[in-house]
Amino acid sequence: MSEKKSPTILAENIELKSRIFTVQSQQIAFANGTQVVYERLVGNPNGAVLIVPLLDDDHLLLIREYGAGVGRYELGFPKGKIDPGEGWQQACIRESQEEIGYLPNQVKLLDSVSLAAGYMTHQTHIVLATELEPSDAEGDEPEPLEVVKWPLKNWAELLSHPDFSEGRAYAALMLLLKEKEWI
Amino acid sequence: MSEKKSPTILAENIELKSRIFTVQSQQIAFANGTQVVYERLVGNPNGAVLIVPLLDDDHLLLIREYGAGVGRYELGFPKGKIDPGEGWQQACIRESQEEIGYLPNQVKLLDSVSLAAGYMTHQTHIVLATELEPSDAEGDEPEPLEVVKWPLKNWAELLSHPDFSEGRAYAALMLLLKEKEWI
Repeated sequence: MSEKKSPTILAENIELKSRIFTVQSQQIAFANGTQVVYERLVGNPNGAVLIVPLLDDDHLLLIREYGAGVGRYELGFPKGKIDPGEGWQQACIRESQEEIGYLPNQVKLLDSVSLAAGYMTHQTHIVLATELEPSDAEGDEPEPLEVVKWPLKNWAELLSHPDFSEGRAYAALMLLLKEKEWI
Repeated sequence: MSEKKSPTILAENIELKSRIFTVQSQQIAFANGTQVVYERLVGNPNGAVLIVPLLDDDHLLLIREYGAGVGRYELGFPKGKIDPGEGWQQACIRESQEEIGYLPNQVKLLDSVSLAAGYMTHQTHIVLATELEPSDAEGDEPEPLEVVKWPLKNWAELLSHPDFSEGRAYAALMLLLKEKEWI
């Protein structure tokens, strides 16, 4: 692959802010002289964690939570924003207690992924959580989350499950299989 | 898993519109009576295609394109919005010609993924494109895209490549390996 000269950001402007979304415009000059104005969503600068909780060698814990984006209950991994002052470790420990009722004694960063490189700054840190011990904490969910114990050997059924739909959840599953040297 | 009664949407409102983003609020009542107001990004109703182009049995074609979201050149699959009146097939054929200079004679929908089920309606359709023949079409890119031929047997190196970062790209790679029965 070639060495590419990064474009120059000539100007940036916050176009819109809603309660949870911030839209920024950037005027960009490419190395060939072409200028464009792009819009992008500016997310939480600390990013979010997506937690892959292993209850034991053979079982994942998943949650079923209403997803307003997709308009139905989504089956997926526990996750949440990293709060100010937290690292991914603390966010993982906090969210695990809030969403699945377990405190992980071991956490390991598997990788970090973007959602849409073209127009979102958002980063999700994918964290393997093991050595779980029961420990509840109050979250901010409007209703109790359903926790689903999933046999890891049935991972392919997750891919084809219509309610397991997030690209980053596929990524997390793939990273887990790789970590376990199943693939 | 339990049968869950879907929440009721009590009201919806377009909060903001920028050139490319639309933010909608929804007032939602859960089955337990709790009411919340959520914001979500409303994307293109037709969704987008992400194309997995196989040049031959052993090689993927990837592109390197500046991603304003991540602020660097991203290594990933060709993709683009499905235009009004198009299906995923036509969008795949059009975008393949625009972004990698090939027309696929076979296209197959592998799966569809969401980006963030909680707050984005966006759907990406992952399409396997094979039997490629050279055929260019003019796209709307500000500079020529770099096309990268990647040996499929080196798929694990893609996962660890810092510029290959989109969760949905991991998903596409996983679906390809599954389709080929490598995993």
